[in-house]
Amino acid sequence: MDTQISEGKWRRLRSLADAEGRFKMMAIDQRGSLNDAIAKVTSRSPEQVAGEELAKAKEVITRVLAPYATAVLTDPIYGYPYSFQSIPRGIGLLLAHEETGYERSGPTGKERKTNLIEGWSVEKAQRAGADAVKLLLYYHPDASEEVRRHQQDLVQRLGQECEQACMPFLLELVSYAIEEGSTNTDEFARKKPDLVIRSAREFSAAKYKVDVLKLEFPADLKRTREFCGGAFDGQERQAVYQLSEVREFCRQLNEGAGMPWVILSAGVNIDEFLVQVELATEAGASGFLCGRAIWKDAVPLYPDVARMEEWLRSEGVYNFLRANAYAHRARPWFGHRRFREGVLAATSAGRA
Amino acid sequence: MDTQISEGKWRRLRSLADAEGRFKMMAIDQRGSLNDAIAKVTSRSPEQVAGEELAKAKEVITRVLAPYATAVLTDPIYGYPYSFQSIPRGIGLLLAHEETGYERSGPTGKERKTNLIEGWSVEKAQRAGADAVKLLLYYHPDASEEVRRHQQDLVQRLGQECEQACMPFLLELVSYAIEEGSTNTDEFARKKPDLVIRSAREFSAAKYKVDVLKLEFPADLKRTREFCGGAFDGQERQAVYQLSEVREFCRQLNEGAGMPWVILSAGVNIDEFLVQVELATEAGASGFLCGRAIWKDAVPLYPDVARMEEWLRSEGVYNFLRANAYAHRARPWFGHRRFREGVLAATSAGRA
Repeated sequence: MDTQISEGKWRRLRSLADAEGRFKMMAIDQRGSLNDAIAKVTSRSPEQVAGEELAKAKEVITRVLAPYATAVLTDPIYGYPYSFQSIPRGIGLLLAHEETGYERSGPTGKERKTNLIEGWSVEKAQRAGADAVKLLLYYHPDASEEVRRHQQDLVQRLGQECEQACMPFLLELVSYAIEEGSTNTDEFARKKPDLVIRSAREFSAAKYKVDVLKLEFPADLKRTREFCGGAFDGQERQAVYQLSEVREFCRQLNEGAGMPWVILSAGVNIDEFLVQVELATEAGASGFLCGRAIWKDAVPLYPDVARMEEWLRSEGVYNFLRANAYAHRARPWFGHRRFREGVLAATSAGRA
Repeated sequence: MDTQISEGKWRRLRSLADAEGRFKMMAIDQRGSLNDAIAKVTSRSPEQVAGEELAKAKEVITRVLAPYATAVLTDPIYGYPYSFQSIPRGIGLLLAHEETGYERSGPTGKERKTNLIEGWSVEKAQRAGADAVKLLLYYHPDASEEVRRHQQDLVQRLGQECEQACMPFLLELVSYAIEEGSTNTDEFARKKPDLVIRSAREFSAAKYKVDVLKLEFPADLKRTREFCGGAFDGQERQAVYQLSEVREFCRQLNEGAGMPWVILSAGVNIDEFLVQVELATEAGASGFLCGRAIWKDAVPLYPDVARMEEWLRSEGVYNFLRANAYAHRARPWFGHRRFREGVLAATSAGRA
């Protein structure tokens, strides 16, 4: 396995994690979903929400919570230009590279293609001061050849660009339902472990040059025998697996990921997320990159930014501190087997 | 005055200073002078010292002292490639851009031209993870037109490159004697305030696009009435000015510098440096960028790296802590009059 890593990638990767190499990162790069949420709480249609409103909501969340993160993921459109002074020194910066949402595609129109932000580039991200480029990729390993190829090519091209710039490349993989109609079904819950694990395996291939994977929890905890009684949201469901099986999925996911990985929150409640962090880090994850699970309950208070701030300072910080505590046993990224033989500097410095 | 500054420059500048905006930076980018010192203590000629030896000495100094700095200045040849893992996360990085030493030039052969490291570039520094580019420029405002022009053009070109890359540009100005034979004379001491102040004024012009000046103390404290009795080195000298005049030179220097500035140590002893930091910050400096005054007494212990480390952990750290304490009243860089009207983000983010 290639353990060569340039000084630039190494320095930037380290800036994303804490001193022990554990990622405790916050995501505030939401655009479409945050826009929709703001529209809903202000009883408007999504088109009626102005960019400045998104920017304002993002700024207050960033300002209050960034000090608790080892790194902040934001977007270069509504996030960073309005929040760059709200991220304290010493906190890493990831910038989103994808256009929000996806393009419906494939023979049934249910498959998803990812597009990049127009006019944006790795070079611009680097100039702006990013420590990593993040790409959210919708991926289904059984999608049509054409859609899979499109997604794979996109990752490969971006991985190459990042490598050239010594910029760490964080790839977020999000599965979706093609046949099941919705991801909120027993059927999809049964299929999810396989989808998540196979996708992680695919993008661990050396050709993609990914440095960190941001992965979904590989099962639906709400549908485990132990938690299906409504532990997280009061709603009872049928059990499709039990916790011991979920532990095994996590183990397989860790095995499939050929590099350090972090768990994402996908908007679940904080209580569920904390259990996910515990199980993921137990299996070998190097931490989390969490957005809505920590701050989503601040959004209904919009447009009262003062009340948002008040909520964030009490509940938001409480959520973050717990997530950080749950990540305490995460595997330091430089302790991953990929780096076991130590880091060999592929020098970017022009030695004579 | 142009107060536009890109997010990238702003984020990087901030990473060099502490949370309050005070620079407490360490220099370990010495090449020629460190090579000579190692040759001397090992009774060899400078040519006999191998690059690996320089690298080893730099690494131990970096490893022990970097945690006490807000940023570390090193070089991309013997420093960074061997020390990048020794600079903790959250500590800023400056990379030297000039070839060590200078080229003798001008009608008398006593003038100095600066050259850049061959094969190095702002782009490479950026890829390597630098938060700023540093250029040491020998400058004499009364040098020949040709030499002054060469030095000015060099700065202007590099300033332009840095601007394009959103990379902060730190310019270090070092004066030298043309007529006086040596800088260690009463005559040069008398001339020095004028040389230092005029040079700072020159490179504060907007066309050079410098972000931080690294300046010499504008007088020789050993030749003040108050300290000429041998306060710093036991050697008695004639007084050429008194402290109240030196304070006035510092005030004029601060006036001449149209941007935040830091004081350099130029190898004086730590006691003298602490007085310099006090006077400079009193006049408006934003901190220091200090090398030898903090760590030089570790070098005679080479090649016994274990003893070097022991010295650094006791005496070196003691020196650094005192320097940091003396910089406590430095003016935060973002409090400089240049930024008084606030920072206007010249967006580097590709908003649609």
